[in-house]
Amino acid sequence: MTKKTDIANLGEFGLIRHLTENIVLKNDSTRKGVGDDAAVLAYTGKEVLVTTDLLLEGIHFDLMYVPLKHLGYKSAVVNFSDIYAMNGRPKQITVSLGVSKRFCVEDLEDFYEGLTLACDIYGVDIVGGDTSASLTGLTISITCIGEAEKDQIVYRSGAKDTDLICVSGDLGAAYMGLQLLEREKSVYRGEADFTPDFGGKEYLLERQLKPEARKDIVESLAGAGILPTAMIDISDGLASELLHLSKESHTGCRIYEERIPIDFQTASMAEQFNMNLTTVALNGGEDYELLFTVPLALHDKAAALNGVKIIGHVTNAALGNCLVGRDGGEVGLKAQGWQDGRM
Amino acid sequence: MTKKTDIANLGEFGLIRHLTENIVLKNDSTRKGVGDDAAVLAYTGKEVLVTTDLLLEGIHFDLMYVPLKHLGYKSAVVNFSDIYAMNGRPKQITVSLGVSKRFCVEDLEDFYEGLTLACDIYGVDIVGGDTSASLTGLTISITCIGEAEKDQIVYRSGAKDTDLICVSGDLGAAYMGLQLLEREKSVYRGEADFTPDFGGKEYLLERQLKPEARKDIVESLAGAGILPTAMIDISDGLASELLHLSKESHTGCRIYEERIPIDFQTASMAEQFNMNLTTVALNGGEDYELLFTVPLALHDKAAALNGVKIIGHVTNAALGNCLVGRDGGEVGLKAQGWQDGRM
Repeated sequence: MTKKTDIANLGEFGLIRHLTENIVLKNDSTRKGVGDDAAVLAYTGKEVLVTTDLLLEGIHFDLMYVPLKHLGYKSAVVNFSDIYAMNGRPKQITVSLGVSKRFCVEDLEDFYEGLTLACDIYGVDIVGGDTSASLTGLTISITCIGEAEKDQIVYRSGAKDTDLICVSGDLGAAYMGLQLLEREKSVYRGEADFTPDFGGKEYLLERQLKPEARKDIVESLAGAGILPTAMIDISDGLASELLHLSKESHTGCRIYEERIPIDFQTASMAEQFNMNLTTVALNGGEDYELLFTVPLALHDKAAALNGVKIIGHVTNAALGNCLVGRDGGEVGLKAQGWQDGRM
Repeated sequence: MTKKTDIANLGEFGLIRHLTENIVLKNDSTRKGVGDDAAVLAYTGKEVLVTTDLLLEGIHFDLMYVPLKHLGYKSAVVNFSDIYAMNGRPKQITVSLGVSKRFCVEDLEDFYEGLTLACDIYGVDIVGGDTSASLTGLTISITCIGEAEKDQIVYRSGAKDTDLICVSGDLGAAYMGLQLLEREKSVYRGEADFTPDFGGKEYLLERQLKPEARKDIVESLAGAGILPTAMIDISDGLASELLHLSKESHTGCRIYEERIPIDFQTASMAEQFNMNLTTVALNGGEDYELLFTVPLALHDKAAALNGVKIIGHVTNAALGNCLVGRDGGEVGLKAQGWQDGRM
């Protein structure tokens, strides 16, 4: 039987100490981590990037099918993704947890195990930890601090007419993974009569439960000497992020349906669920891929990037934001957004 | 009748824009505020301080008697207090809100009004804003970033045997304010038969509902050329914070009951509630005063500081942490802590 230690046994300060005592600081920029009124960081000659995410049980995640270890991993990674989207490197996180009585010390250990694993892989230090009681469910608030050379920071606002629009990886898989998990949850509840079946759908589950931030793409770009003109990470769906880029850059865009990267498992699952595949890829969200623009002159360099696809180009604002279909017809992009969707 | 606009009318992005569109950035170190994947800060030659607080409805605050504007003000100020406790200056905050359906746009405007007021008074920029739906109640997560000269940062760990222990302001008032509000809440609910009466207790209410961070004390210390050896802000009660200082500094302490600063209203209220005044001052919490230690050689300078009282001295660790009573008897300090108490 699994051991379940009541959090009250440790007390608030004891719990924080227990969860953070084995942290080994990795970065030179971390001068003081957990344990004082504030963390102390030293960013000599670099600019400092700060991003924060609030994740609430029942809104952003469902513990019915998300293991706490995966949740810890994902909570960290989605923040790293925002730093990479500025062409920066994540270096520190602070973690605040609100925890209701149904959680035990071992649950939080699982969460921290995932969190720590992500931090080890991405070279990030946990510099602040805070836990508090909560009346209902689990609340997770993570702030990530990163660094970038001043002249290497990439904003959403720098896209120019004729720039190429590029996207890393493939889209829609995390959303289909969510659909799959929701279906299996219905099975579990006896609300549907499917037989649980994850065979051949491992990729979809992995994309939903254990996403990665595209550190590799940011490094490839630097290696290839490409500084994107604009960049954003795809958390709310390709369409929504394209509209953000266009709005901030005062531009428009044309992207081509046939060029949107989609994995075979995503396509097969969408067919099974009778969903429009392009809609899934445009609006699914939680892909944590990078969407960026590069000057047309860098076409060959961009085309040669591993795991990156050119899906369209930037236009002037008057032309609007359109998807060019396989038949050549154009439809306006809308941020359908799964409002208040998952992480 | 007060106007109540449904948050769904604006949508998530519309709401953030609405709440943050009038922000004017004040600090040179703020390069990019709300509106990209991350905020961009430039801290040339200074070290960066980061602190974060998670505030949950029903645990840290009760909207039955805390107006949202006050809550916004207090949420910001408690974070500033942590930065001052490092001898730093707060410069930026990010704000994440989880909001249930019972809140309307005007509620969040009230919250932001208080938040913005605090930021204006303390010279802080709001650089990140995020709102999300929540299943129950209001969740507030604020991260504050500040700066300090490298050789001016004061940790909890620097106290030395024979150092003087100093505290700013007075203690226990915020806790008595809370007791008063809780009593009036009982009245309102018909659970008690007191007549609501706040006359002559304004200071207690102010300390609970609209606390200030001790920017002035940090400035006085700098002005007097005093660099404390250790410092912490008093959020969980004097006793608890003294134990933190002693633990981190590997020291002990003696503080004198008769020297603990207490306001007349606090004393009179404690008597009315039949509570032990010293216990209130030691364990009440939410004072947001600064507790710091200075070398004995600086006695005269410290004694001359306005609004600061010397309450005891640091000892070696073997002597433990004691309160010396009015009768000269010693009792060990315990972090009684109102576990999971208010902010």
